[in-house]
Amino acid sequence: MFISSKDNPRIKHYIKLSTNRKFRYEEGSFVIEGARVCRDAFEQWQNGKLIITSCFATQKAVEKYTDYIDPTWFDKYEQFHFISDDVAQKMSDSEYPQGVFIEAKMIRTAFEGDTEDENGKYLILDDLQDPGNVGTLLRTAEAVGVDAVFMCGCCDLYNPKVIRSAMGTVFRMRIIHTKSFSEVIKLLKGNSITVFASVIDENAESITDVDFGCKSAMVLGNEGNGIADDDIELCDKKVTITMLGNTNSLNVASAGAILLWEMCRGGQKNG
Amino acid sequence: MFISSKDNPRIKHYIKLSTNRKFRYEEGSFVIEGARVCRDAFEQWQNGKLIITSCFATQKAVEKYTDYIDPTWFDKYEQFHFISDDVAQKMSDSEYPQGVFIEAKMIRTAFEGDTEDENGKYLILDDLQDPGNVGTLLRTAEAVGVDAVFMCGCCDLYNPKVIRSAMGTVFRMRIIHTKSFSEVIKLLKGNSITVFASVIDENAESITDVDFGCKSAMVLGNEGNGIADDDIELCDKKVTITMLGNTNSLNVASAGAILLWEMCRGGQKNG
Repeated sequence: MFISSKDNPRIKHYIKLSTNRKFRYEEGSFVIEGARVCRDAFEQWQNGKLIITSCFATQKAVEKYTDYIDPTWFDKYEQFHFISDDVAQKMSDSEYPQGVFIEAKMIRTAFEGDTEDENGKYLILDDLQDPGNVGTLLRTAEAVGVDAVFMCGCCDLYNPKVIRSAMGTVFRMRIIHTKSFSEVIKLLKGNSITVFASVIDENAESITDVDFGCKSAMVLGNEGNGIADDDIELCDKKVTITMLGNTNSLNVASAGAILLWEMCRGGQKNG
Repeated sequence: MFISSKDNPRIKHYIKLSTNRKFRYEEGSFVIEGARVCRDAFEQWQNGKLIITSCFATQKAVEKYTDYIDPTWFDKYEQFHFISDDVAQKMSDSEYPQGVFIEAKMIRTAFEGDTEDENGKYLILDDLQDPGNVGTLLRTAEAVGVDAVFMCGCCDLYNPKVIRSAMGTVFRMRIIHTKSFSEVIKLLKGNSITVFASVIDENAESITDVDFGCKSAMVLGNEGNGIADDDIELCDKKVTITMLGNTNSLNVASAGAILLWEMCRGGQKNG
């Protein structure tokens, strides 16, 4: 089907999913925009790991991104629709849309203790509010080999800005989305996982001195305030990045890159 | 002076500096917006390291940020002006302006070979285009103790988004802004600095195997394409981040955090 009207109910449905968090959870669906991240979504869909309920693309986009959009899908699958450039502009978050849009089902993941992995590495995001930071940290976690990510009280994982900055990691990574930090800690401790709170504190152990040759989880806190004191109390150890320069200057995504790198490198050294 | 008109020539001058790169270089001036970054600017101004030619603040902002804006400045210095909330909204990049704005003179820095420092560490940004990435990498460089940063063919250092995401680093760090990558390399090699090109390439040396116990410079390349092949040829060595996970997933600011951390840690280990 070719859609040229901005008032088409399918288009309205997409835009509502894109802008309304509550509606996303009622539907159990989220949206994906952009050529590169849609490529990753198609890949997971073809592996049977992601359910695509709708795909919208302009003729131009299908001609341009032939590496990963197969034009025959638009004949074969009823959820694939061509759209006009105007409709693409209306749907897009961006000034210059690439013209590919997906609606997919949320991915439910659970944590089962990872009993087989004696050297598991985990990331806990505690109260991070910036979608760009969350997306970037998810990418970094995947890159360095983190086994699963817990998100507690953060911005919505399915916020379109998280999906875009995470660049497909959301479809591949085990991400457990929860409200309660204390429940996550209880779960991890019950699985003999040592929990490290990352802090800016000269008296905390330097990240380079920590032995990560055990099951380990790293906690990163809120952009402005770090990890709340009550939450730090629940962790096993405090760690910090000891530097030559001005440590206060690091943003949470950059600090996270260094902390996760050291944690997973520890795993490599000892694994 | 209290400014309540959006058409005031001082306000128009600020907005033109904020939005027009060419005008910034004609004037040799740039703008700084936001409470935290203005605090850093005031600090450097009081140390005599930054020339503030204008400051604009709302009454509310001066009452709120008493820790670092002294109300007597508005009587004492003719370049300090109170502005109305409407004018602040007009000047701001953001939906909810904090109400503090500065015009300052660009900081000219040169590289003099750093002959005293036998273990100098340098960062070269080659054709980075995203202001957020550039700002974040400048912060990271300061945090880990990089001695100077060279920017070649990047987005403008004085773009308001770079200034904001660099969070005051621009006022404190030595940053050499240039067009020619090859001239920078010539300059560095003339000072016996080993230049490392960071690449995604299994055959490059792993960052954890490199001995950084010498004067070293790390090159980071364009967001989409990495470092151009011709530029890689000019470097001494290729290095890469060898990971357990999906390395392609790292963005340049996160990869840069890990690479700079390893380079400067090497300096610590050997220094």
